[in-house]
Amino acid sequence: MKRAAFFLSDRTGITAETMGHSLLTQFESIEFEQTNLPFIDSVEKAEEAVEKINAAAERYGSKPLLFSTLIDKEVRKIIEQSAGMMFDMLNTFIHPLEDELGIKSAHAVGRTHGMGVYSTYKSRIDALNFSLANDDGNTLRHFPEADIILLGVSRSGKTPTCLFLALQYGILAANYPLIDDDLESSRLPKALEPYRNKLFGLSIAPERLQQIRKERRPDSSYAEYQQCQYEVNAVEKIYRSQQIPFLDTSAVSIEEIATTILQTSGLERRLHG
Amino acid sequence: MKRAAFFLSDRTGITAETMGHSLLTQFESIEFEQTNLPFIDSVEKAEEAVEKINAAAERYGSKPLLFSTLIDKEVRKIIEQSAGMMFDMLNTFIHPLEDELGIKSAHAVGRTHGMGVYSTYKSRIDALNFSLANDDGNTLRHFPEADIILLGVSRSGKTPTCLFLALQYGILAANYPLIDDDLESSRLPKALEPYRNKLFGLSIAPERLQQIRKERRPDSSYAEYQQCQYEVNAVEKIYRSQQIPFLDTSAVSIEEIATTILQTSGLERRLHG
Repeated sequence: MKRAAFFLSDRTGITAETMGHSLLTQFESIEFEQTNLPFIDSVEKAEEAVEKINAAAERYGSKPLLFSTLIDKEVRKIIEQSAGMMFDMLNTFIHPLEDELGIKSAHAVGRTHGMGVYSTYKSRIDALNFSLANDDGNTLRHFPEADIILLGVSRSGKTPTCLFLALQYGILAANYPLIDDDLESSRLPKALEPYRNKLFGLSIAPERLQQIRKERRPDSSYAEYQQCQYEVNAVEKIYRSQQIPFLDTSAVSIEEIATTILQTSGLERRLHG
Repeated sequence: MKRAAFFLSDRTGITAETMGHSLLTQFESIEFEQTNLPFIDSVEKAEEAVEKINAAAERYGSKPLLFSTLIDKEVRKIIEQSAGMMFDMLNTFIHPLEDELGIKSAHAVGRTHGMGVYSTYKSRIDALNFSLANDDGNTLRHFPEADIILLGVSRSGKTPTCLFLALQYGILAANYPLIDDDLESSRLPKALEPYRNKLFGLSIAPERLQQIRKERRPDSSYAEYQQCQYEVNAVEKIYRSQQIPFLDTSAVSIEEIATTILQTSGLERRLHG
């Protein structure tokens, strides 16, 4: 079974996609051909979209599913005349919201994921630069300004998590790799003592760690199972004895790691979408 | 006017937040106190959420808005008994979808934003590592494997865009800064010739570029308006004469830059949410 699904938006389509994906993942037995059609902001572009939708309807002999955050009325009317089935994610909720709030919505295109004010853009980029400059324990100079400092052994997911925290939430996230010397001593490195309340540990299943390391350096002792197991055991021992909150990242996505860190640490995000 | 808004989810809450934000931005005159309540996956957690919702209802004397992607029926029932007003983003659409597809949905928690298979995680991390290793023209060695190579003057947004393309879409994005020597010659650097079809240019308004550079190096000639204006003019001249597609990033978000690049270049994303 195969079906076409389209994500229709007057801007990036990220909202329509995010929502559409959530729904489609509930139907695993069907294969969806997914197409993002962003920036539909004119009659011409709406008509182009209809052509694509109708072609997909013929190709598969079924109604394409249309996940839409389109705001403009004229554009929506054109799309509604296509052969697709519309799931209108903004307009379904906007009227009950207007009723509850007692005011009319702006019905304005391009409000979501916009630049917002310059300060929003700036805090995002500042966070990103912070996380790039404070990666892998290169320097501890900026730790006083960090919102959070991630700990973990090499390849346990510190860097991607820091970058995600910066891009998504504007969080100033540094990270510090715990290496053999640290692991042997079973104690927190002295340099980290002043930042105790900012520490969050990442852990990982030894099998998974081995798999990741093997891909990077296939024949190194670094990628041997025994080494991975030793490091994971040692790092978790430090987390427990020092009462550092930690998370096993083996079976969770970066989004889930980031959300868990925010929730556990009670950290306030600096960006709100 | 102030209101409470909650994003309720059995996982990260990113879908609920994304959708909720899109709706709330349509009501600019109201200030929303926004709270993400992720990982509501038990009766206890649902009851805790209800307490928070009811407290907010009392605090503001109005119904809190609840944007939910909760799947579990029992959890949803508990939340529905709170003082909030529910906007149920998954269940509103799941039944019409079931009817159209002729099958029952999985109604399974945790399908969205999950790890998926290891290969998905891997392509994301590979893309991220690629983009970190191929930032700022440090090396051109891996340009043959790049999906796209972003060009631009210093501080025009290359690095954040590359990282976003990697994290969000698994795209292998490299970047190459065009410096004074390149700009003077008005030609494409020779080293880039073999990769013509992978090039995409970023531009920026000189005022904006100056603002960004000033924050980084306040008293440098690098941040002088004349220098910024010269560089932007020169770089756009190269883009035009070499027929390199380009985008002015001054008033658009990273999401919009990334989506535009994908669309313009016809690049296939490697990740689908």
